[in-house]
Amino acid sequence: MTFDPASLKYDANGLIPCIAQQEGTGEVLMMAWMNAEAVAKTLDTKRVTYWSRSRQAFWIKGDTSGHIQDLIDLRVDCDRDCLLAIVDQTGAACHTNRRVCFYTSVISGDEVELMSPMSDT
Amino acid sequence: MTFDPASLKYDANGLIPCIAQQEGTGEVLMMAWMNAEAVAKTLDTKRVTYWSRSRQAFWIKGDTSGHIQDLIDLRVDCDRDCLLAIVDQTGAACHTNRRVCFYTSVISGDEVELMSPMSDT
Repeated sequence: MTFDPASLKYDANGLIPCIAQQEGTGEVLMMAWMNAEAVAKTLDTKRVTYWSRSRQAFWIKGDTSGHIQDLIDLRVDCDRDCLLAIVDQTGAACHTNRRVCFYTSVISGDEVELMSPMSDT
Repeated sequence: MTFDPASLKYDANGLIPCIAQQEGTGEVLMMAWMNAEAVAKTLDTKRVTYWSRSRQAFWIKGDTSGHIQDLIDLRVDCDRDCLLAIVDQTGAACHTNRRVCFYTSVISGDEVELMSPMSDT
């Protein structure tokens, strides 16, 4: 069956969450949002492209930082309301310059920082 | 710093997305939603508890199916608006009885099913 981005289930703002995971290591890098056009652009260009809710604009990941996400595979979940992008992430996925956005653990009852920002070397 | 579920950023419906990842293998199992009370219950019980948007009720994962998620770690992202639960998943995470919900690949332009439902043995 041919895939049509319009067949996905978007929220009231026309957005669908997309989880980015590093191929090979399996690291969950980040979660951001796409609209139907961002899904199509991501598939067309193989450069992961989100919709920035704060800027209300397309966000071609890494276009300013150089921290691009090359698309390896794009997967749809059973309810068609969430995406999983398998990617090859250059450098830090997080705007704090950490490899991943999920660097704070809370299971102990306290907030524990699991990793530091990457060096710029 | 002591973690307070109220310090997270919830959407207009009082919900935050939570990605579940299998410890060890790194499989991204599913994504579902929590409210502040579900976050607290998850941390208190170490059994991952979502908020079912369709049923408008707490959803203790596996309570009816037996496919429970034991919590290993709970992580907060940089923007405090997404969670990552590192879990030990018993059996299938997906209601279709597949191990993960993200079993459909669309990168080829066609929809390709990557895995079958698990056997009940």
